Amino acid sequence: MFKKSKIDNAVTQLKQRFGDQLSTSEAVRSHHSHTTTRIPQQLPDAVLFAKNTQDVSEAVRICYENDCPVIAFGIGSSLEGHVNAPHGGVCIDMNGLDQVLEVNNEDLDVVIQPGVTREALNEYLRDTGLFFPIDPGANASLGGMAATRASGTNAVRYGTMKDNILALEAVLPDGRVVRTGSRAKKSSAGYDLTRLLIGSEGTLGIITEITLKLYGIPEVIAGGTCSFPSVESACNAVINVIQYGIPVARIELLDVVQVRACNQYSGLDLPETPLLLLEFHGSEAGVAEQAEMFASIAEEYTEYEFQWTSDEAARKKLWKARHDAYYASLAYSPGAVGVSTDVCVPISRLAECVEETYRDIEESGIISPIVGHVGDGNFHCMPLSDPEDDEMRKVIDGFIKRLSERAIAMGGTCTGEHGVGQGKQEYLRKEHGDAVDVMMMIKSTIDPKGIMNPGKIFPQN
Amino acid sequence: MFKKSKIDNAVTQLKQRFGDQLSTSEAVRSHHSHTTTRIPQQLPDAVLFAKNTQDVSEAVRICYENDCPVIAFGIGSSLEGHVNAPHGGVCIDMNGLDQVLEVNNEDLDVVIQPGVTREALNEYLRDTGLFFPIDPGANASLGGMAATRASGTNAVRYGTMKDNILALEAVLPDGRVVRTGSRAKKSSAGYDLTRLLIGSEGTLGIITEITLKLYGIPEVIAGGTCSFPSVESACNAVINVIQYGIPVARIELLDVVQVRACNQYSGLDLPETPLLLLEFHGSEAGVAEQAEMFASIAEEYTEYEFQWTSDEAARKKLWKARHDAYYASLAYSPGAVGVSTDVCVPISRLAECVEETYRDIEESGIISPIVGHVGDGNFHCMPLSDPEDDEMRKVIDGFIKRLSERAIAMGGTCTGEHGVGQGKQEYLRKEHGDAVDVMMMIKSTIDPKGIMNPGKIFPQN
Repeated sequence: MFKKSKIDNAVTQLKQRFGDQLSTSEAVRSHHSHTTTRIPQQLPDAVLFAKNTQDVSEAVRICYENDCPVIAFGIGSSLEGHVNAPHGGVCIDMNGLDQVLEVNNEDLDVVIQPGVTREALNEYLRDTGLFFPIDPGANASLGGMAATRASGTNAVRYGTMKDNILALEAVLPDGRVVRTGSRAKKSSAGYDLTRLLIGSEGTLGIITEITLKLYGIPEVIAGGTCSFPSVESACNAVINVIQYGIPVARIELLDVVQVRACNQYSGLDLPETPLLLLEFHGSEAGVAEQAEMFASIAEEYTEYEFQWTSDEAARKKLWKARHDAYYASLAYSPGAVGVSTDVCVPISRLAECVEETYRDIEESGIISPIVGHVGDGNFHCMPLSDPEDDEMRKVIDGFIKRLSERAIAMGGTCTGEHGVGQGKQEYLRKEHGDAVDVMMMIKSTIDPKGIMNPGKIFPQN
Repeated sequence: MFKKSKIDNAVTQLKQRFGDQLSTSEAVRSHHSHTTTRIPQQLPDAVLFAKNTQDVSEAVRICYENDCPVIAFGIGSSLEGHVNAPHGGVCIDMNGLDQVLEVNNEDLDVVIQPGVTREALNEYLRDTGLFFPIDPGANASLGGMAATRASGTNAVRYGTMKDNILALEAVLPDGRVVRTGSRAKKSSAGYDLTRLLIGSEGTLGIITEITLKLYGIPEVIAGGTCSFPSVESACNAVINVIQYGIPVARIELLDVVQVRACNQYSGLDLPETPLLLLEFHGSEAGVAEQAEMFASIAEEYTEYEFQWTSDEAARKKLWKARHDAYYASLAYSPGAVGVSTDVCVPISRLAECVEETYRDIEESGIISPIVGHVGDGNFHCMPLSDPEDDEMRKVIDGFIKRLSERAIAMGGTCTGEHGVGQGKQEYLRKEHGDAVDVMMMIKSTIDPKGIMNPGKIFPQN
């Protein structure tokens, strides 16, 4: 489909135009392909370090004229092979677009370039009393978070990227620059192209500017933990929390394997049984009320005590298990790498889905802690294996397939927040049926040459 | 573009297939065209009363085969000519699809057919402790609300239709039925076709099933009112409310003309100065805290007293001015009809936009109360005029044009919640620039024959 000679032409023209901003060194190309295990690396032919929208526009136009694939790159923390270059082509590194362009305190919004990371943004905002809440774990670029429709631990209160972007600027496949949305909080004027680009994983265009919603930093942040005799009892407590409309900021589940790993790694003595971790945002009285409401719900489902505090140091100690979960998992199986995967189901099916998954893990003979953003019905498994163990890798692939299909069968989705990339393509039609044809029609009309991040999202024939 | 003979063929085939479900009587056709003033009526050739998705699918396929326009119809409360048939064709009345299919209490969602109205849904839900909050004023069908991306008074807390729909079923222009989204609270699996259909005004397909988010009915609902010396002081108070993160459920502005009209109509003695009306949802302690926070903000900006109550009867009395606003406006200029129009701007520009609009109203010699969903920066003008007065109608058209362009120039949108329909087409490109081309590409690829609600949204050449 793509010709090496034409890609070479594009690289030559880009070199002429951009000089040292373009690299073809193997080290740089390797760094700009998939680096988060499981999916093998596929290197681009060149990497362009863009500095502004104009660079992106000109580079994309050169690629368009030469039928050359274009892959946008943030910080490379995506998990499903989103930044691989299966057909070669040019990777555009967006980290040079790292400016906060405009903070609008009165409107609670900020205009940024896509290379700004969420931590850099919050550091920039620290004197304004405002913050951007979405937290996928990694210090990802906000452009990447938009492109994969990311979320994380506090989506239960603040929503996902789709709920927190007001407007975008994007470079289309032919190099044209368009703007979608506006700083108005709502609009009924025309198709919602903003939401179409969010989650499109670089297959329709490259995001070059983002207008994000901001929130006031809560007066008080309280944290709490509570152990439960079973995943089901923990999930039932969560369902009650949501039904009562308690505005929890985070509500996380650690399964017994994860708790055991955290006890070992962080020297904790948590009961080896499922654990819920909570965070409340509000006024002093507000968080106390939320915590008391949670306590009265929890006592219906567990005899373990609910502990909570609004003291920052004590809160961080309570949440230590969650913060260390990733490293605790890796340490649990020394020398292993973790394959992070996620699904999301209606919350009423969550306990059933987690427990079936738990049995699957046991029967498959794999080690896989489970951590869940349970307020949304979203959970992550991280099967651990020796990176050289090809047999175990096949077992894990089979596990991920069953997990994805289980979630879809329960009315859920094969990915709550990681995206499709290369890793979840085979489930797209199982989940969306003929709607995939509509997605492909949109892809074909906006990107008729198929140069934007080819080999992603859509099942490859 | 559309041929009368082919439309006649479609109607004949539909008559054969659907018998008495199809009407060609003028009274029925007239009722199914635009009826909310300003934009002249344009009647369809026939009206089909659909009973289920299969009916819609078959009817659309017959229309597709005959290149016949198809217009979906809810209850006809749209304001910008959305249901007119400028090219004739077949109107599909969706009121027969009026079933609540599934209530999922644990997941806080409900699956409905699009002909269910918001009041019927909340009536159905009354014993569950749950409700659907979005309230555009009219008792609109939820299918129509989805198609126009509606919102209303409590969007400041609960968001708009775009934020409250999890999944859709829709009939495409060739009669195929597709499903978008799922009951999972979030997903990163593929393009967001749900959000693409929301606000597409029937130009891409007909929505035949909707999965909506629900909320627990608040333990306590409190209402309050506060007069302000100026629109600016009221808006500044609102900006503070939003910045402090007070989760107001509604925060409405009535301008001095509207207050005067309400005093006359409802026998009130409100100070003739801008008025804010508030509603708080939460626990007894929670609403008291919100009200106290508002009071302490308000006293910075006004010497008028903030009155509030959680007693239902007293609350309704406080809010009487708002509930009667529409009829009060009409009574203010006897024999007149009101032309309702809306815009939305970043909240920091709201006072400026309202005051410029106020001057424009005075200079134009028209009478137009202003009511605003000010927490979102969204406000409505309702110029009043004798329906026979063609001169005044031109003056009002000029006023709406200046209003729309003023909002766009301030970084806002020509419509916050009414939609584009026929009335706001000329502002689409001013607001979205070349992004309109992308919208048109999507329209052309999904609806290549252009049969779905033709003559809407996009500027007509």
